[in-house]
Amino acid sequence: MKPILVFQTDFTYKEGAVCAMYGVVKSVDRELEIIDGTHEIPQYDIWSASYRLVQSMHFWPEGTIFVSVVDPGVGTPRKACVAKTAHGYFVVTPDNGSLTHLKAWVGISEVREIDQSVNRLRGKGTEGTSVFHGRDLFGYCAARLASGIITYEGVGPAYPVDEIVTLPIVEPSLQDGKVRGIFEIGDPNFGNLWTNIPLNLFTQAGFAYGDTLRLTVRREGNVEYQANVPFQPSFGYAPKGEVVIYNNELMRVSVAVNQGSFSERTHLSYGPEWQVEFEKVK
Amino acid sequence: MKPILVFQTDFTYKEGAVCAMYGVVKSVDRELEIIDGTHEIPQYDIWSASYRLVQSMHFWPEGTIFVSVVDPGVGTPRKACVAKTAHGYFVVTPDNGSLTHLKAWVGISEVREIDQSVNRLRGKGTEGTSVFHGRDLFGYCAARLASGIITYEGVGPAYPVDEIVTLPIVEPSLQDGKVRGIFEIGDPNFGNLWTNIPLNLFTQAGFAYGDTLRLTVRREGNVEYQANVPFQPSFGYAPKGEVVIYNNELMRVSVAVNQGSFSERTHLSYGPEWQVEFEKVK
Amino acid sequence: MKPILVFQTDFTYKEGAVCAMYGVVKSVDRELEIIDGTHEIPQYDIWSASYRLVQSMHFWPEGTIFVSVVDPGVGTPRKACVAKTAHGYFVVTPDNGSLTHLKAWVGISEVREIDQSVNRLRGKGTEGTSVFHGRDLFGYCAARLASGIITYEGVGPAYPVDEIVTLPIVEPSLQDGKVRGIFEIGDPNFGNLWTNIPLNLFTQAGFAYGDTLRLTVRREGNVEYQANVPFQPSFGYAPKGEVVIYNNELMRVSVAVNQGSFSERTHLSYGPEWQVEFEKVK
Repeated sequence: MKPILVFQTDFTYKEGAVCAMYGVVKSVDRELEIIDGTHEIPQYDIWSASYRLVQSMHFWPEGTIFVSVVDPGVGTPRKACVAKTAHGYFVVTPDNGSLTHLKAWVGISEVREIDQSVNRLRGKGTEGTSVFHGRDLFGYCAARLASGIITYEGVGPAYPVDEIVTLPIVEPSLQDGKVRGIFEIGDPNFGNLWTNIPLNLFTQAGFAYGDTLRLTVRREGNVEYQANVPFQPSFGYAPKGEVVIYNNELMRVSVAVNQGSFSERTHLSYGPEWQVEFEKVK
Repeated sequence: MKPILVFQTDFTYKEGAVCAMYGVVKSVDRELEIIDGTHEIPQYDIWSASYRLVQSMHFWPEGTIFVSVVDPGVGTPRKACVAKTAHGYFVVTPDNGSLTHLKAWVGISEVREIDQSVNRLRGKGTEGTSVFHGRDLFGYCAARLASGIITYEGVGPAYPVDEIVTLPIVEPSLQDGKVRGIFEIGDPNFGNLWTNIPLNLFTQAGFAYGDTLRLTVRREGNVEYQANVPFQPSFGYAPKGEVVIYNNELMRVSVAVNQGSFSERTHLSYGPEWQVEFEKVK
Repeated sequence: MKPILVFQTDFTYKEGAVCAMYGVVKSVDRELEIIDGTHEIPQYDIWSASYRLVQSMHFWPEGTIFVSVVDPGVGTPRKACVAKTAHGYFVVTPDNGSLTHLKAWVGISEVREIDQSVNRLRGKGTEGTSVFHGRDLFGYCAARLASGIITYEGVGPAYPVDEIVTLPIVEPSLQDGKVRGIFEIGDPNFGNLWTNIPLNLFTQAGFAYGDTLRLTVRREGNVEYQANVPFQPSFGYAPKGEVVIYNNELMRVSVAVNQGSFSERTHLSYGPEWQVEFEKVK
């Protein structure tokens, strides 16, 4: 079977952009299967685009083609590329940082710049347009690749993987019984905040479900939040409305309010400037 | 053909959860057909989940498998189950009240607890996670059932239908020319409120399209709204901006503002405490 | 292969309406392919429905069937129809203005009124309902047409194309070096405003990328906004946060803020009363 196409963008469904983009795919090949990854990446938020790719990709069949279009630089000289990951997936995307987590956590085995003289939509009256590469370039090229009209080599010339644009990633640490990291991303629906700390660092530190941990959140050094919080396997082990530390769906330490929004209540957010520290309460 | 999978959750599309869940389904069986029922059930609102199932299910082909994940108790000892309805559909869901309307209005013929030793995702590094059963348990088990990898018996052990968790349902009544009920649910998009009163109770009461009815809304006994309102076959029979009583898409009496939001204008809502009464204006 | 069904409505995914509508389609014919065009047309906004059809349709394979349900007059005597466009697509819709742009820009070659005695859903207990033609009439009839159960003639009787309900369209002009038009529609996600002015009118006026243009926006004659703005091929050629005039995805002149919302910042909107004028700055 032909590979599935999974799309993620910041377009939303508020107007006709997604519809036009999908029409191009189906006009290339009626058989192609299109999945909405999400069209609600926060606007221009390349970091979130990068994280959402690594969050969901390995649950898909190998060979699946992801089309990720968060592209504030559309029409400017930033590269348009198709990357091949070390675990056998493809990502069709502007090379603007959206490959950051995949490169760091999984590895990119090869990357090719899309040859616009071959792999750009023609004949629909949009040749003079520079603002919708999701439709005219990424969607079209991805459909041709999925359909088998072009091979991976047919995308365009390869360039060094080292030249892929990446954003800085922060590593967590364990020292003197304190586990330190950052809030790396959030869940914008439920208001949970997810750290960059893997569960096994908690295990190494001797933290176990049922423990109470002292959580300190600093923004650029200033304490913004400090509390003793229980560490539990899931939200529901905390009383409704109470803060809880838990192991999230990607095996990373996270903080939530049971049936509430931790980020709304505390006004904490994510990014390299949001440092977190966990220590066992004696 | 293999049964369709229809998903409804409170996850939204704001992050990568739905995408990961659907990837699991497609990794079980590429041929399976996935439909978004909705991912915008209000957060933790099991009542709405229950109502949305009964609202849409019978329009689908018999045998369709619904996956309903509004699951504030994920990872706690609440049961994970697959119910078979009396009209031949399946629901894969936490047993937390989401089967309330189906059980009351249609009937559940059989229910089985999901055997996690067989029907939980493995090999993706998420065995230690307790917070995403939509992906690791419900989606995975539903895909195996739809694919034919397991039979319904292969879900896990049956348990008595009487043990299914349900929320209280209120019955409407007709007495002395007054029809009484509750606002049972709303339409969060257009702002209409839907009562639990079937059209035939209006017919029995002698109410007909074109009549003006006295509508009284009480919250726990206190009158919150009272007005004379026309009863019409559709919104458009009222002037724009006017309140109208109508027969909704499920043949239940409802209240709307033509091209406006009745719930926003009046601040009325739904639930057992929102009592409604209709009486013919002489 | 059977034609694809592309749906657009103002229903949102907040409740079970879309799910029920799609269930009807799949109950007519399991093989039919359903695509979400969008379910987030602004409520009752027939003008937007009309524009979104023309924005995306020609990117789809010829023969694709669009189902467009923005229908404030549902259940009243407005016609329910299936139109055939001059470029070979079908639109199943209330005849309430949603065919305006297609008729003006592409042409409608034939239109038929849906015969409700044949092409309305029966047997699901909703025969007495007048408020959900998306499910009971448009979705059902479109599925029968796509499936081949009925031919186009089987929809119902043809009526004169001249009788199709349309909304007024404003034409742009070039005079004395000034290009005049209106803001015809917006992008509700990114906050851009799209004029009715095709790029070639700018070319005729001698405007080129890199020029600075004097943009004047009037509402019914009163100046609401005036500024000198660069004309560029894409947003990213303007500094972040700056206003830019660009050629949009449909080759029409538009105005944006780079990585910001022009409509939010300026409180300008779209419609015939929002007149725009562009003139070259000497």
